[in-house]
Amino acid sequence: MRPRARGFHLVTDEIVGQLDALTKINIGILNLFIQHTSASLTINENADPTVRADLESHINQAVPENAAYYLHNYEGSDDMPAHIKASVFGSNLTIPIQNGRLALGTWQGIYLGEHRNHGGERCVIATITGL
Amino acid sequence: MRPRARGFHLVTDEIVGQLDALTKINIGILNLFIQHTSASLTINENADPTVRADLESHINQAVPENAAYYLHNYEGSDDMPAHIKASVFGSNLTIPIQNGRLALGTWQGIYLGEHRNHGGERCVIATITGL
Amino acid sequence: MRPRARGFHLVTDEIVGQLDALTKINIGILNLFIQHTSASLTINENADPTVRADLESHINQAVPENAAYYLHNYEGSDDMPAHIKASVFGSNLTIPIQNGRLALGTWQGIYLGEHRNHGGERCVIATITGL
Repeated sequence: MRPRARGFHLVTDEIVGQLDALTKINIGILNLFIQHTSASLTINENADPTVRADLESHINQAVPENAAYYLHNYEGSDDMPAHIKASVFGSNLTIPIQNGRLALGTWQGIYLGEHRNHGGERCVIATITGL
Repeated sequence: MRPRARGFHLVTDEIVGQLDALTKINIGILNLFIQHTSASLTINENADPTVRADLESHINQAVPENAAYYLHNYEGSDDMPAHIKASVFGSNLTIPIQNGRLALGTWQGIYLGEHRNHGGERCVIATITGL
Repeated sequence: MRPRARGFHLVTDEIVGQLDALTKINIGILNLFIQHTSASLTINENADPTVRADLESHINQAVPENAAYYLHNYEGSDDMPAHIKASVFGSNLTIPIQNGRLALGTWQGIYLGEHRNHGGERCVIATITGL
């Protein structure tokens, strides 16, 4: 996925747009897995962008930079917090597929959590199980 | 699933009771996915109800209502905290199936995390992979 | 898995070393599920051990022992915090398989989070889907 600013980003369309095989699945599971330890995947509201902003504000407060107990900081003050956030939100999602479409709720979207200040491109592996 | 009060609820029996197909699977995976952004699914202790109470007490303290930095609050003070909790605990679970039963540990149960004061009915999609 | 000290442990090799079937899968998913409510599975950096140390330091600070609101404490001060950490980090992982190998990113490894002071042996169920 293309580089994004630190924070949470709605990426449902970018992901679904690359999964032509999805339309051929009547029932199944889409597994998404991000191959990084300083970014995450999560599900949250697809409508109001303030949800993404507030999620970022909250996690920055809950997982502070420059905590006195951090030993791992040679890549900068956003380094260790990014690792922690990656584990709190997780690196994989399993989303049901029904009738050729993701069975997301009305208000659900897929979020990419970019936890580095300059994370660059991120690689997400999509694997479809089903028939 | 029927409406529940805010907090964590043990729902293993309610879910398994609706999955007749489970008994026909020798080995596989049950994927559970909640179609909401203010409720969550997680695994925790199935015995002492104080675990559910303490999990709720802790997360209310860790994700406070009325934080000064919240922009998304037009549905009430429980709105944005519910979104954050949904991402911290997650919206999907993948539980192994062995010999027609969920391969949960002795002390494990499936929790529904209801993070709104009045969340109403919640929809959980169950998808079974296996043979 | 053999007993480990409280904290986070890199267990990729221990897990993969027991999964001979992995090499026969061209494309698929490895589902890992830990059958306990006071330990967790997560993905994080496989290189610098200070990431594991800092993750433990952070979560001990975020989920304190002896919080005034804990009701569930008859197994000791590490009891309820361990349950909370298990739900924050999660009990299952779904990792893609490509060409007979886990498709982990360069810097990714599988962590076992041992959240009890004396957790003992831990049971992780591995289920492979694919062909």
